[in-house]
Amino acid sequence: MRYAVLGTGIVGRTIAAKLASLGHEVVIGTRDPQATLARTDRDAMGNPPFAVWHADHTDVQLKPFAEAAALGETVVNTTAGTAALTALDAAGNANLAGKVVIDVANPLDFSAGMPPTLDPVNTDSLGEQIQRAFPEAKVVKTLNTMNCLVMIEPTRVAGAHNVFVSGEDTGAKKHVTELLSSFGWPEGSVIDLGGIETARGTEMLLPIWLRLMGTLGHADFNFHIQGAR
Amino acid sequence: MRYAVLGTGIVGRTIAAKLASLGHEVVIGTRDPQATLARTDRDAMGNPPFAVWHADHTDVQLKPFAEAAALGETVVNTTAGTAALTALDAAGNANLAGKVVIDVANPLDFSAGMPPTLDPVNTDSLGEQIQRAFPEAKVVKTLNTMNCLVMIEPTRVAGAHNVFVSGEDTGAKKHVTELLSSFGWPEGSVIDLGGIETARGTEMLLPIWLRLMGTLGHADFNFHIQGAR
Repeated sequence: MRYAVLGTGIVGRTIAAKLASLGHEVVIGTRDPQATLARTDRDAMGNPPFAVWHADHTDVQLKPFAEAAALGETVVNTTAGTAALTALDAAGNANLAGKVVIDVANPLDFSAGMPPTLDPVNTDSLGEQIQRAFPEAKVVKTLNTMNCLVMIEPTRVAGAHNVFVSGEDTGAKKHVTELLSSFGWPEGSVIDLGGIETARGTEMLLPIWLRLMGTLGHADFNFHIQGAR
Repeated sequence: MRYAVLGTGIVGRTIAAKLASLGHEVVIGTRDPQATLARTDRDAMGNPPFAVWHADHTDVQLKPFAEAAALGETVVNTTAGTAALTALDAAGNANLAGKVVIDVANPLDFSAGMPPTLDPVNTDSLGEQIQRAFPEAKVVKTLNTMNCLVMIEPTRVAGAHNVFVSGEDTGAKKHVTELLSSFGWPEGSVIDLGGIETARGTEMLLPIWLRLMGTLGHADFNFHIQGAR
């Protein structure tokens, strides 16, 4: 299948590389490919610039958002949450309509420093905002409750743990569940929370997740719903 | 030890009964004991009126908030979250100062129907509000992320799972951790998240907790941080 991954950060790169390794055709979308490739600085977390990563992943194309989304049969949003709607607007409604749009982003607002807050929160969520903005897209929120390395290699965390899916379209959630299975998520580890409004609950896991990362000193952990028989 | 449990709902009753069964002296605080005892209706969840429960727990006293708090060496807040500050005001700063105040409540706002939202949320928490309002109290937020039966009988959920503590006072958190141990929480199951501001993260677990209860059809589940080595 052809996947468009929107966003050139560490989450997008990690998912794009995994999808390519599974034999999918992958195109990464960005605002301005030349500008993305011209960057030479490491990001705030010390990850190398995109061009360095791309040199090792020449099978993954880099295109402007709209071209990438047009090529993708499924679209994965890995942009910074507060920039997601702008990126998806650039991708264009016509290039998202009818497609499964997997939203992995969290609307973290770092403008007031650490820890970040969520915007929207409580009475709305990024997942819902995207579904409202693109009503013809089949938005599925998933994988936003863990580090990106755990997303594509769940065995980094020993023992049983869970990944959540939220969305309105049963077929889209089935597609995503099969994709998660191909990433290594065992049967029964995927918990379908219901409609896209349940993305509020998973996005609101971020504050404790960020705190746990600080307390534990690593990111190889995940939520496990014990007793989810 | 003498415990004051503020609140006459199912959470307060469950914790009060557990404390009494462990040999502690327990007094429950309420606004108006006569009014509490006069009620004959079941609550919204179908629990019997307080008087029915109290007839089976005559070792637990019922007193006005201030008298109860004055008697308690440790105070447990189990009131409805949106009423907690009013209840604690009635308990009185002088009766809370210097004491460990265990905050089990969540600031769930049901005024707009189901699902409830949180108020405060994101940039503040009930735990922080209580600590600010009663700076001489040693507030510890804990147990607010699970059903009350699991709080006092963690083996209801098979396998490893976690309880979080948040608070400014190390000695108070040690006291609470020992209390949790007496409730049956195994060593290593208690995760100290840090200061009271980390109560934001645990209170923000409520939306997905409530959704999971609906999805799973029962409340005998809990969060387990897999990989918290």
